[in-house]
Amino acid sequence: NLVILDRVENPAAIAELKALNPKVTVTFHVYDVTVPLSETSKLLRTIFDKLKTVDLLINGAGILDDHQIERTIAVNFTGLVNTTTAIMEFWDKRRGGPGGVVANICSVTVFNAIYQVGVYSATKAAVVNFTSSLAKLAPITGVTAYSINPGITRTPLVHTFNSWLDVEPHVAKLLAEHPTQSTQVCAQNFVKAMEANKNGAIWKLDLGRLDLVE
Amino acid sequence: NLVILDRVENPAAIAELKALNPKVTVTFHVYDVTVPLSETSKLLRTIFDKLKTVDLLINGAGILDDHQIERTIAVNFTGLVNTTTAIMEFWDKRRGGPGGVVANICSVTVFNAIYQVGVYSATKAAVVNFTSSLAKLAPITGVTAYSINPGITRTPLVHTFNSWLDVEPHVAKLLAEHPTQSTQVCAQNFVKAMEANKNGAIWKLDLGRLDLVE
Repeated sequence: NLVILDRVENPAAIAELKALNPKVTVTFHVYDVTVPLSETSKLLRTIFDKLKTVDLLINGAGILDDHQIERTIAVNFTGLVNTTTAIMEFWDKRRGGPGGVVANICSVTVFNAIYQVGVYSATKAAVVNFTSSLAKLAPITGVTAYSINPGITRTPLVHTFNSWLDVEPHVAKLLAEHPTQSTQVCAQNFVKAMEANKNGAIWKLDLGRLDLVE
Repeated sequence: NLVILDRVENPAAIAELKALNPKVTVTFHVYDVTVPLSETSKLLRTIFDKLKTVDLLINGAGILDDHQIERTIAVNFTGLVNTTTAIMEFWDKRRGGPGGVVANICSVTVFNAIYQVGVYSATKAAVVNFTSSLAKLAPITGVTAYSINPGITRTPLVHTFNSWLDVEPHVAKLLAEHPTQSTQVCAQNFVKAMEANKNGAIWKLDLGRLDLVE
């Protein structure tokens, strides 16, 4: 089972996923990570009731636009914390839950901050740090966690974006001049990291490579 | 001139500050860092109109309570970013401003996360990261920045607080069993760090010591 949660439904993408492997049931729910925790809990209740259990949560929502300070923090940081907090209700072994795995998509900006987008970079530092705390809590909660930190990948996210207070009006162009990787090679390494399933791992997925940090 | 901004006025503390050095004019304004940026701008306009200029902004608002996810993020992270963003209107040399200095009070949890309060620790990782970005932007904005990272200090903040999902009900007690420092010795080292006035510095103020990190 694969459950996709996103603000906007993309039927073509869902159809593509379904065609890849007819044995996997793919479902979609509208979800905005900035909703209150109670709404996330309700949605998860629906999903858990249907599937009985969920093995892996991938927190992948993210925006890059330092003109929108509140929204960047709400989507990239608060949304990830709230979604993770909500799923603990179902997973936490202290409540009789089966445990689970959280994969948080962060960014290589944690290791080399893109200082022109200091708000974005700070949210990514926050979620890597939060992921490490989650991993250390695994003996208590039964829930393990690792972070997936992609380098510059050719996605729409980096086509055009605003720097903080326009400190660098050409930041998207400058970024594009750096070596990048395709979404496909990044996704393949993401799968490898998921298969490794290593609690506390900080995975760096840059320039087609997959490396453990530290 | 010393301008104190806080949610709650403490006349006794203000009187104490005034008595310390009668040559320094101490004023107080009510300020909640979680207000929208436009309100912060208005307050700063009042202050700048009166004082003509401000040399140093100390961002010191912080809470420690991982039951309050949104509020922890709003006070410790968003509030610091918004206050800093608002003052740039007056300081940014690209707008003819005189520049300035930002001192951000973060925490040693950046170096050793208190994983039982993963939300708090993540906000502190965020603001240290943001401070580093600010420092790198100094050639563009004329505004320098450094972070002040105190260790466990005997303040009301650590008397009692909640861990994330109560993963450690006795977290405050466990923390209190660690070696701590007094507010006075921490404050003296804070003054030394301010006097050093080093752009990009990550100051660690722990166990009575003042150290530069990295």
